[in-house]
Amino acid sequence: MPACFAENPAFTALMKYGGVLMAKTVLMSPLTGITRIVKGAAASREDAVALSGNDEHKIKRLMSKDPYVERLKAAHMNDLENILPFFVIAILYIATNPDSATATLLFKVFTIARYVHTIAYVGKIRQPTRALAYNAGLIINLFMIVQLIKYSL
Amino acid sequence: MPACFAENPAFTALMKYGGVLMAKTVLMSPLTGITRIVKGAAASREDAVALSGNDEHKIKRLMSKDPYVERLKAAHMNDLENILPFFVIAILYIATNPDSATATLLFKVFTIARYVHTIAYVGKIRQPTRALAYNAGLIINLFMIVQLIKYSL
Amino acid sequence: MPACFAENPAFTALMKYGGVLMAKTVLMSPLTGITRIVKGAAASREDAVALSGNDEHKIKRLMSKDPYVERLKAAHMNDLENILPFFVIAILYIATNPDSATATLLFKVFTIARYVHTIAYVGKIRQPTRALAYNAGLIINLFMIVQLIKYSL
Repeated sequence: MPACFAENPAFTALMKYGGVLMAKTVLMSPLTGITRIVKGAAASREDAVALSGNDEHKIKRLMSKDPYVERLKAAHMNDLENILPFFVIAILYIATNPDSATATLLFKVFTIARYVHTIAYVGKIRQPTRALAYNAGLIINLFMIVQLIKYSL
Repeated sequence: MPACFAENPAFTALMKYGGVLMAKTVLMSPLTGITRIVKGAAASREDAVALSGNDEHKIKRLMSKDPYVERLKAAHMNDLENILPFFVIAILYIATNPDSATATLLFKVFTIARYVHTIAYVGKIRQPTRALAYNAGLIINLFMIVQLIKYSL
Repeated sequence: MPACFAENPAFTALMKYGGVLMAKTVLMSPLTGITRIVKGAAASREDAVALSGNDEHKIKRLMSKDPYVERLKAAHMNDLENILPFFVIAILYIATNPDSATATLLFKVFTIARYVHTIAYVGKIRQPTRALAYNAGLIINLFMIVQLIKYSL
């Protein structure tokens, strides 16, 4: 039976890298919001009204999609698809009582990979930078899942 | 090293507000599904077929986007972007052994803010109601992240 | 006050079904990526450039939406909307110290229901298969939320 996983040193590492990863993920939203204002791209009709008053022509323009806002949204979505599962997997993985140095290294590399992914996506850096960063994160998630399933058998 | 965080009274508060928050988040999906049926907006081709038989004209109409369904989906998406990270952050934050009254207050205000956000979004309430609710939630997430990073240093 | 929830046998069950569920969720992303390559549907402009060089005509074709890619993305999105909340709810639910056989059964049925949901969505299986699988998952989430709220009162 797994011991209380908060007592594993790997959990302290998860707290550290978790803070750093969540800072990035949570800040993607206001970054998108600020870009919406700068680029003049509203998220909904009442936002367009708040920005432009009742000028129907302006509202229509504010409601059109901006490619840079769409890119930020895609990067954010990719974070939700990968970083949120990472935490679920990491917490359950810690409960398998893994070697804490291995676990800490996995969390560290995952954090770096996801920062590189966002920078490559938002900064339109030539492929395969983003693909490599993405795959590094994915492989770490899959590695922990395999440990989890092995432990359960 | 953090103690078993489930023993912190703040964790009991997270269980309470967690139930209330998750009830809202999880119910956004069936609410969207019911609205799809009422408004006649299908999520996929086989749903359109199930609702209309094989009348190609009806299928096409069912596949068009409904603005109210899109609004519910946007509100739900915003929940996933903010409420799911909140739980990750809150669990790690509790492990820093914070003052339990402070933690409970943060969880309570976050829960209220997210309910106001959804009501403002779905009810098309004039801005800045939704923006204020959104920012309250964001600031609470960022505050806990800062505590987490501070603790790790 | 809840005991350390990792000591509950239901937590071991969550580790097992969690691994199985997360494997599916996390693999939806590379499955979409592979389908994008096979079907020739790029996720962003720089991906299109990487696949086709600088032929503007090819880039435009690669940027158009593929219905099968969109279907995989919808199935993945539905996982994020339901499976991620499931883990938050399940961890908090375990902390209410439920009967471990009941909890294990809930986790097992949820896992099966979500696999059926994905197979039905991706395989375009006639409704109501997908709707039934979806509702089974939703009801389990709601049942645990009710237990959570009851426990907190």
